[in-house]
Amino acid sequence: MPPPDVVLPECVTSAVSESSLLPELIDALRCLPGVGPKSAQRMAFYLLERDRDAGRHLASMMAAAMDRIGRCQSCRTLTEAQLCGICANPKRDQSLVCVVEGPSDVAAIEQATEFSGGYFVLGGRLSPLDGIGPEELELGLLQQRLAAGGVRELILAISPTIEGSATSHYIAEMAAAVKVPVTRIAHGVPLGGELEYVDGGTLAHAFCGRQPV
Amino acid sequence: MPPPDVVLPECVTSAVSESSLLPELIDALRCLPGVGPKSAQRMAFYLLERDRDAGRHLASMMAAAMDRIGRCQSCRTLTEAQLCGICANPKRDQSLVCVVEGPSDVAAIEQATEFSGGYFVLGGRLSPLDGIGPEELELGLLQQRLAAGGVRELILAISPTIEGSATSHYIAEMAAAVKVPVTRIAHGVPLGGELEYVDGGTLAHAFCGRQPV
Ligand SMILES: [Zn+2]
Ligand SMILES: [Zn+2]
Repeated sequence: MPPPDVVLPECVTSAVSESSLLPELIDALRCLPGVGPKSAQRMAFYLLERDRDAGRHLASMMAAAMDRIGRCQSCRTLTEAQLCGICANPKRDQSLVCVVEGPSDVAAIEQATEFSGGYFVLGGRLSPLDGIGPEELELGLLQQRLAAGGVRELILAISPTIEGSATSHYIAEMAAAVKVPVTRIAHGVPLGGELEYVDGGTLAHAFCGRQPV
Repeated sequence: MPPPDVVLPECVTSAVSESSLLPELIDALRCLPGVGPKSAQRMAFYLLERDRDAGRHLASMMAAAMDRIGRCQSCRTLTEAQLCGICANPKRDQSLVCVVEGPSDVAAIEQATEFSGGYFVLGGRLSPLDGIGPEELELGLLQQRLAAGGVRELILAISPTIEGSATSHYIAEMAAAVKVPVTRIAHGVPLGGELEYVDGGTLAHAFCGRQPV
């Protein structure tokens, strides 16, 4: 090592300059949900030391996905095709349409239920204060689909939050205007949930919505 | 939707074919340590719906890092420069050399201690059954550095596992052959650790290694 008071020529300082790519990669990994500084560091070291091919593959899939995945022309879920796999599948009954907030809700319903109808993916909830109105959720497209006829039931599977309920209400009115029957999925105590751990609002709601057994 | 028995022309089927990029991205994300199918799905949806710019940035940082980050010519830690920031820093005392298994150990020591010497990063532990011998850990490079003189203490900060201990022993002999003093970091009961939860081997080791107070 040269003593600290020697000025190094630039050809040397550029070769020995501190690494910036590694901290930049660690920082970039923190854009992933649930990834803090420690996990980001562990991920970066893991890829660089153990599996660069997987890192290269992930980088190229991610770049391609960000550029090529758009929204389905019919249901608005994420897909790189014009129509998603569900809309393009002639075995799905498109006269049943389930309205959800996002693509992850489609995945959850597909994994948990036997539902074999179609979807409409809002991409959010009505939230006037955040500038999210009917246009942002492409509700015009849903309205066209309802007005075109052929939908025998519109199923609302939207979170029972304040904004979600307002969104459900808005869509229910839209469907009523063209005489399409609307249902919403049941709200209540989760299966396996202990009553004492369920929040008061849910419990009150479940109590009012009690059914004969 | 056409009825199921109509054969679609290829120009239509290719436009409506099921999306494959999204499941491929979810699958590729699972190469990250600690990321299972659920988190991978959440990450993919998050990037695609909320922050495509961050996704593009991460993809490009990751591709650049996999291709451009190599190992420091002197200490073998990860860096895209010829010499890492620590080796290139004239304020670090390179006559103290701390031997660690990987770059994450360097990060841990830098974050937790005031150590201001240099490092040698093995990139693993001796493990003859896995084909990891002295060459794989570049121990020749460490030997050159010790033989060149100027190292007044070699500090072993290697995990006290069976393979780690064998590695420490091998390096200690190497240093002894060129008369460089060797120390190893203390093993014992972790600070804040309750005795009853410490494993027996650690406890026995700590007992034998008791020190006057
Ligand atoms: Zn679709
Ligand atoms: Zn270095």
